[in-house]
Amino acid sequence: MKWREEELKEKVAEICRAGGIPPTDAAMIAEVLVTTDMRGIHSHGVVRLARYLDCIRAGGIQPAAEPVTLNESGSSLMVSANGGLGIPASVKTMERLLEKAATNAIVIATINHSDHYGAAGHYAMMAADRGFVGFSMSNTCPLVAPTGGRTAAIGNNPFAYAAPGRAHRAVLFDVCMSKVAAGKLVIAAEAGKKIPTDWILTKDGKPTDDPNEIWHDAVMLPFAEHKGYGFATMVEMMTGVMAMSGMMSGVHSWNTQPGRDADTGHCFIVINPAFFGGTDTFRDRIDAMIDELKRCPALEGVPEVLYPGELEWRREAAARRDGITLPEASEKELARAAEMVRHT
Amino acid sequence: MKWREEELKEKVAEICRAGGIPPTDAAMIAEVLVTTDMRGIHSHGVVRLARYLDCIRAGGIQPAAEPVTLNESGSSLMVSANGGLGIPASVKTMERLLEKAATNAIVIATINHSDHYGAAGHYAMMAADRGFVGFSMSNTCPLVAPTGGRTAAIGNNPFAYAAPGRAHRAVLFDVCMSKVAAGKLVIAAEAGKKIPTDWILTKDGKPTDDPNEIWHDAVMLPFAEHKGYGFATMVEMMTGVMAMSGMMSGVHSWNTQPGRDADTGHCFIVINPAFFGGTDTFRDRIDAMIDELKRCPALEGVPEVLYPGELEWRREAAARRDGITLPEASEKELARAAEMVRHT
Repeated sequence: MKWREEELKEKVAEICRAGGIPPTDAAMIAEVLVTTDMRGIHSHGVVRLARYLDCIRAGGIQPAAEPVTLNESGSSLMVSANGGLGIPASVKTMERLLEKAATNAIVIATINHSDHYGAAGHYAMMAADRGFVGFSMSNTCPLVAPTGGRTAAIGNNPFAYAAPGRAHRAVLFDVCMSKVAAGKLVIAAEAGKKIPTDWILTKDGKPTDDPNEIWHDAVMLPFAEHKGYGFATMVEMMTGVMAMSGMMSGVHSWNTQPGRDADTGHCFIVINPAFFGGTDTFRDRIDAMIDELKRCPALEGVPEVLYPGELEWRREAAARRDGITLPEASEKELARAAEMVRHT
Repeated sequence: MKWREEELKEKVAEICRAGGIPPTDAAMIAEVLVTTDMRGIHSHGVVRLARYLDCIRAGGIQPAAEPVTLNESGSSLMVSANGGLGIPASVKTMERLLEKAATNAIVIATINHSDHYGAAGHYAMMAADRGFVGFSMSNTCPLVAPTGGRTAAIGNNPFAYAAPGRAHRAVLFDVCMSKVAAGKLVIAAEAGKKIPTDWILTKDGKPTDDPNEIWHDAVMLPFAEHKGYGFATMVEMMTGVMAMSGMMSGVHSWNTQPGRDADTGHCFIVINPAFFGGTDTFRDRIDAMIDELKRCPALEGVPEVLYPGELEWRREAAARRDGITLPEASEKELARAAEMVRHT
């Protein structure tokens, strides 16, 4: 089926409210998850909703927790999500941070004692949509082996940035630090295909070309060897170490341990281009950078060079125009979420 | 031969002074280049000195230019290097930024109209050595093809961060955005070896396994496909677009066009952990993160898991203890630099 944007958002918000999430927070979750699906990042869209409810049921997430400010200065916020949902804590903190960015060249917020916050890029885009540069990052439970290691010691630690253009909406880049996302392994396994040996290790630390190891505690490998490892450590430093949140093995999986406090940390940075060449000039120069990337001649068989975020804007525009088609897994999880709250 | 640290620094500074560089700036260049060699990053150490002098002779770098402040706020600095050397402009700007960081949670500086600034990590470590988190980045002339493209459209745009520990000096990570550095291609070419086909393209945009293409305008490919491309774009956004410096094709090669203003841009960010859990706590937690990484069991045949920067600290300590051994290319370039200024 095709969902209209507002219809899907209301459906998600309604389920959240029935699951004990306050209405304002429910609306934030609906906004973040549905926008993410519209941008084609289905792995971080409404497919996650039922799992949030699993965690609430199991006691690992407090559905009505309010974030608490632990420390504040003119250019910084240190927040605890207080064991609550990651999305509303992040949206509320980012809103406060954007106010500070109006009168400061650069501002920073950390959040600790949080949980899964959806797609990192969403918060970076909150900044870009108001004319700022935004950065967003989060740690996760250990999933990735450091270079030379054979067990999962560090998270795949998503990182995103966004910067506003004028003719082009924004540059948006959102990655995690493993070589591939788990979804790619599932697809390869279902297709009966082998995978390159630099994607994962078996749980015993052996190289493998069998994607089915994903079902047997496979260890993810970082992208570009030590480079992915170094970026994962950067995010851990900002979101675990500095935010005073769980770090490394102190972050618990919301997937395998839904009843346990995940103690995830996030970090956001916002820069105001008015303190440099001016906001209008900045937007024009982002356009110029994008235009120069687009003018790069493409490889044989490649239709055109894309700038980071271009695919997302095309998909979002198409979803707004034509309606949203969710993958089967997302529809199933949405139905499961609706069923879970029917009898509460 | 083995150099003692102070002896090599004085040699470099002396050459700089004879080349028309003011004594204070000469000392900064000596400090940055020699420290970089001591950390084992010989590609960015004293090997570069003769090339700086080439640019000065050819008119592309003004040896006695003083940086100019274009804009300043409590938490920001926007600086022009005024067509001068990248290293002294960066050291001076970072010193001013570290003063601002004493009373602000986060501060940022941009530099435009600059040139090659040596190893990105040096400036990040200036922050870490004073108890702050430091980030450092620079754009370069176009060297890398965007994902799907077949010409060099964007720089390999180095990026570094550092964060101080207590028992462990610091985490230090310093990378560029191409799959491999040019030096690796030269080594493969000299050894008569083939290279993987995802390292470079020929100048005509064809995949190749021949490292000798590096001598024929080969195009570098980004690491981890779109991930390296996205990080290169991030650095371009901060150092070209925001710093109001040359960007993309507006940055000129100091190697192939020594007589031309490179118009390179840099950006530095410093975070003060005192505004979060406190500086002492931060250092202890960095140690805890490092210790947990070190406890990760290593792959067969790998002696131990290293944290980012660990090799650099070992090499620096050994160089301080045993003296500095420069590679042949560095000795040759140092001798060439000395010869260049002998008759000025």
